[in-house]
Amino acid sequence: MNIHLVAHLLGRSLVFLGLTMVFPLFWAVYYQGPDRAALLSSALITLASGVAVALLVPPRGDIRYREGFAIVTFGWLLVSLYGALPYLLCGVCSGFPDAFFESMSGFTTTGASILTDVEAVPKGILFWRSLTQWLGGMGIIVFLVAFLSHVGVGANQLFRAEVPGPVADKIKPRISEAAKILWLIYLFLTVLETALLWFFGMPLFDALCHAFTTISTGGYSPRNASIGYYDSAAIQWVITIFMFLSGTNFALYYQALRGRSLKAFWRSDEFRCYFSVVLLATLITAVSIRSLFPGGEPLVRAAAFQVFSVITTTGFTTADFSLWSPVAQAVLVSLMFIGGCSGSTAGSVKIGRVLILLRQGMLELKRLIHPRAVLSLKIDGKNISKDLAVNSLEFFFLYLAIAGVATIIMAATGLDLVSAFTSVAATLGNVGPGLGAVGPAGNYAAVSAFGKVFLSILMLLGRLEIFTVLVLLSPGFWKR
Amino acid sequence: MNIHLVAHLLGRSLVFLGLTMVFPLFWAVYYQGPDRAALLSSALITLASGVAVALLVPPRGDIRYREGFAIVTFGWLLVSLYGALPYLLCGVCSGFPDAFFESMSGFTTTGASILTDVEAVPKGILFWRSLTQWLGGMGIIVFLVAFLSHVGVGANQLFRAEVPGPVADKIKPRISEAAKILWLIYLFLTVLETALLWFFGMPLFDALCHAFTTISTGGYSPRNASIGYYDSAAIQWVITIFMFLSGTNFALYYQALRGRSLKAFWRSDEFRCYFSVVLLATLITAVSIRSLFPGGEPLVRAAAFQVFSVITTTGFTTADFSLWSPVAQAVLVSLMFIGGCSGSTAGSVKIGRVLILLRQGMLELKRLIHPRAVLSLKIDGKNISKDLAVNSLEFFFLYLAIAGVATIIMAATGLDLVSAFTSVAATLGNVGPGLGAVGPAGNYAAVSAFGKVFLSILMLLGRLEIFTVLVLLSPGFWKR
Repeated sequence: MNIHLVAHLLGRSLVFLGLTMVFPLFWAVYYQGPDRAALLSSALITLASGVAVALLVPPRGDIRYREGFAIVTFGWLLVSLYGALPYLLCGVCSGFPDAFFESMSGFTTTGASILTDVEAVPKGILFWRSLTQWLGGMGIIVFLVAFLSHVGVGANQLFRAEVPGPVADKIKPRISEAAKILWLIYLFLTVLETALLWFFGMPLFDALCHAFTTISTGGYSPRNASIGYYDSAAIQWVITIFMFLSGTNFALYYQALRGRSLKAFWRSDEFRCYFSVVLLATLITAVSIRSLFPGGEPLVRAAAFQVFSVITTTGFTTADFSLWSPVAQAVLVSLMFIGGCSGSTAGSVKIGRVLILLRQGMLELKRLIHPRAVLSLKIDGKNISKDLAVNSLEFFFLYLAIAGVATIIMAATGLDLVSAFTSVAATLGNVGPGLGAVGPAGNYAAVSAFGKVFLSILMLLGRLEIFTVLVLLSPGFWKR
Repeated sequence: MNIHLVAHLLGRSLVFLGLTMVFPLFWAVYYQGPDRAALLSSALITLASGVAVALLVPPRGDIRYREGFAIVTFGWLLVSLYGALPYLLCGVCSGFPDAFFESMSGFTTTGASILTDVEAVPKGILFWRSLTQWLGGMGIIVFLVAFLSHVGVGANQLFRAEVPGPVADKIKPRISEAAKILWLIYLFLTVLETALLWFFGMPLFDALCHAFTTISTGGYSPRNASIGYYDSAAIQWVITIFMFLSGTNFALYYQALRGRSLKAFWRSDEFRCYFSVVLLATLITAVSIRSLFPGGEPLVRAAAFQVFSVITTTGFTTADFSLWSPVAQAVLVSLMFIGGCSGSTAGSVKIGRVLILLRQGMLELKRLIHPRAVLSLKIDGKNISKDLAVNSLEFFFLYLAIAGVATIIMAATGLDLVSAFTSVAATLGNVGPGLGAVGPAGNYAAVSAFGKVFLSILMLLGRLEIFTVLVLLSPGFWKR
C-alpha cells in the first residue's frame, strides 16, 4: 500500500471540497443569512487541512488496486466528515451523529434526513445540502480523475471503484476523457432541469437545489413537504421525467450524442428492461391506489412520481406513501432492491445486474434439460463472462445478507420491524425515505445516535457498491 | 418426454398413497371416530385411480432428465390433490382451496394450517395430517425409488430432483441403496423421539404425531397451542433436540454409523456453520426477550425452541413470538431465509448454499486485490465447481425474487405488508407460521381462496427447490 500517494490524493480531495464550499457561502451572503460564519470557517478548515496534507506528503508511485480502493473509501469518509462541518458549526445539527448522517446522506445521494424543519434552516446550508448530493452523484473522485491528469495510469482503477454498476466499459476513450464527458452531460441535464423548473414557477433557488438533487438521484429538498409543497402538475411531471433520465446509463447519452440517434437507448437491453419495470410498477401502483385519487391524471402522476422516485433511488415524495395500499408499499419496497441502470447516478442493485441474474436463471433451467450444452449469457448481443455473472450474483447475495443483519441491528436500536427493515433498505439502496417511523411523514431524527452512524456506513456501502468498502476489511488487504 | 412412463409412475405413486391411508383409518376405527367413512372412501378412490392408471398405461423406456422433473413435480401435485380427499370428505375443510392448502402444507412439511380448532378434528384425520408430513419429509418419490427396483437407471435423476440441497453426492453406494438407508435413519429417529415423548408423559397418539412432524421438520400439531400445550420442560427440550437433529444432513448419520465415530459431524463445514448459527441466533434472541421471562432456564428454552423451530423450518411454537421484541422477530424472519442443512428434511435456502455464498464472497474480495490469481472455492477441503457456485447463487436470487413478487401478490389479496411478506417467507421456506395475521396466534384461515392456492404453489416451489418446478415452465422443456 502506497500510503504517501493515498494521503496526498486525500489531501487534494479536501482542497477541492473546501473550494466547493464557496458556492453555498455565496448564497449565505446573498441572503445575509446567519450561516455565513459557519460556511466560511468550514471552507477554511477544510482547505487548510487539505493543503497541509497535500503539501506535507508529496505524491510518489502509482495507483494500483489497493490504493484505488483505499482512496475511494477513505476519500468518501473524509469528505463526509468535513462536509458535516457546516451543519455542526451553524448549529442546525446538535451533535456529530446527526451532522455526519446528514452529510453522508448528501454525498451518497441517499437523501435521508434528520432535520425536522428543513424550512427553518438557513439558505446557505440548504444549498450546501443539495450541492453535496450533486457532487456525490457522479462521484467526486471521478471529478478528480477528470481534472487531475497526473493520476495517469491509476485513473482507470479509481473510476471503476467509484462508478456504479457491473458494465462500465461502454465508453471507449481514455478514462479521464470519459469522466469529463460524463460530467458535461451531468451538468447539461442539471442546467436544463433548473431552467424548466424555473419556467414552471419554482423560485430559482429552489429550482437549482431540486435540479442538483434530481440529476444526482439524491432527493434532498429545501421544503418540508418535498415536491408535494409545489401544488403543480407541471413541476411534478418535469421532475418525474428528469428522475427517469438520471436513472438511465449516462454512457447511452454519450453514444446517442456521438451517433446522433436515439437508437442507442432502444438497443440497450438494460434500458428496455428499466423502461418495462418502471411502466409495470407504475401501472400496478396506480391500480392499487385508485380509490385515493379523484381523477386519472392526478392518480397516474402520483403513482409515476413515487415509482420513479424510488426505483431511481431519488426519494422525493409528493404523498405519504406509507398510507398507500399494502400492494403499493410492497411494490415500492421491492423497487428499493432494484434501483436504476448501471452507469447512472441511481443506487441499489441496478437493473443491469438484475438482468444478468434473470438471464443466468434461464441458463440454469436450460442446463437442467441439456446438462452438456455449452451455454453463454448475452447482454446487448455480447457474451458476459462467467466471472461477471458470479460477481453480480455475489453482489446480490451480499446486498441481501447485509440488509438482513443490518435489520437485526437496527431493530436492536429500538425501531419496529418495518421501520428497521425499510431504514436499512432505504439507506443501503441510497433511496432516502422508508416506511413506518422513517416514512415520508417521519424522518431519521428519532433514530438513536448509534443507529445514525450505522445507517451512514450502510449508505457508504451502498454508494460504493459493497465490494470497494468490504475489501478494506478483508484480511489480505493490509498484508505486504 | 416419455408420457407413458410418467403416467405409469404417477399411478404407482397413487397406489402407494392409497395404501398409506390405512394407518389413519386404523386410528379412526380405534377411536370410533366420525372420520371412518371419509378415510375409507379416500383410500379406495386413491387406490382405484392409481391402479387404473398403472394398469392402463404400461411402463416403457427410461427416466431421463425431463421425465425425472415431470414425475417429481406432477407426483407432488397429484399426491397433494388426493391427499386433500380426507379433509374434504370428512368436512373439516369447507372447500377445495382449504383442503388443498392443508394437504400441500402437510406433504411439503410446511405446517401452515387453515384449521382454527385443531382439537375438534377427529383423530384419524389428525393422524393423516401428521403422516403426510412424515411421508413428505424424506420425499415420497425417494421412497418409491428405494422400493421400486425396476426404475433402475433413472432413480438417480428422481433422487436428485427431490432431495434438498446442493451437495447430494456424499452417499457413495447405489442410489436406491442410499434411499433405503436414509429412510431407515429417518424411521429410527422417529421411533426414538416417540418413545422419549411418551416417556416424558405425552399420550402415545400425540407422541407419534409429534415425532412424525418433528423428524420431517413439518410442524403440524394435534393441539391448538402446538407444543405450548404441554407445560413440560422435558418435552420441549426433547423436541428442540430432535428438531436440531432433523435439520442435520442425514448423510452425516450414515457416515457416523459406518465409521462408528461422531467426527463426521465436526469435520463437516456445513454442520459447524449450522451449529454456530443456531447458537448465535439463540443467544441474540434470548438477550432480546430476557425481560419477558422470570428465570434463566425458561428463557433459554423458549429462545432455543423458537430458533431451532424456525431455522429447521419445523414451525412448532411454545409462545406467540409475534409479541416478542423486534430484534427477536428480525432474527426469526432472517432464519426463515437460511434453513437447515442440505440433505436434511429442512426447507428454505439451506446452510450448505449459504456457506458456498459466503465463501464465494470472500473469493470475490480476494480477486479484487489479486485479479489474476486462480482462486477456488473449497467446502470440506474439496473444490466446489464454479457451476455449483453459480447454481447456488442463482438459487438464492430466484428465491428472493420469487419472495418479492409473491409478497406483492399476497398484499393484493388483502394482507398487510408484514403478514404478506412473512406468509410468503413461511410457505416458500416450508416453515409454517409467519408474523401478523399469519403469526403463531393467528393462522391461514382468513387468507383468500386465491391466496391459499397461491401459497400452496409456493410451498411446492420451496420443497422442490424451485428449479425442479420452474423447469417445467421453461419454453424448452416441452419441445422435442
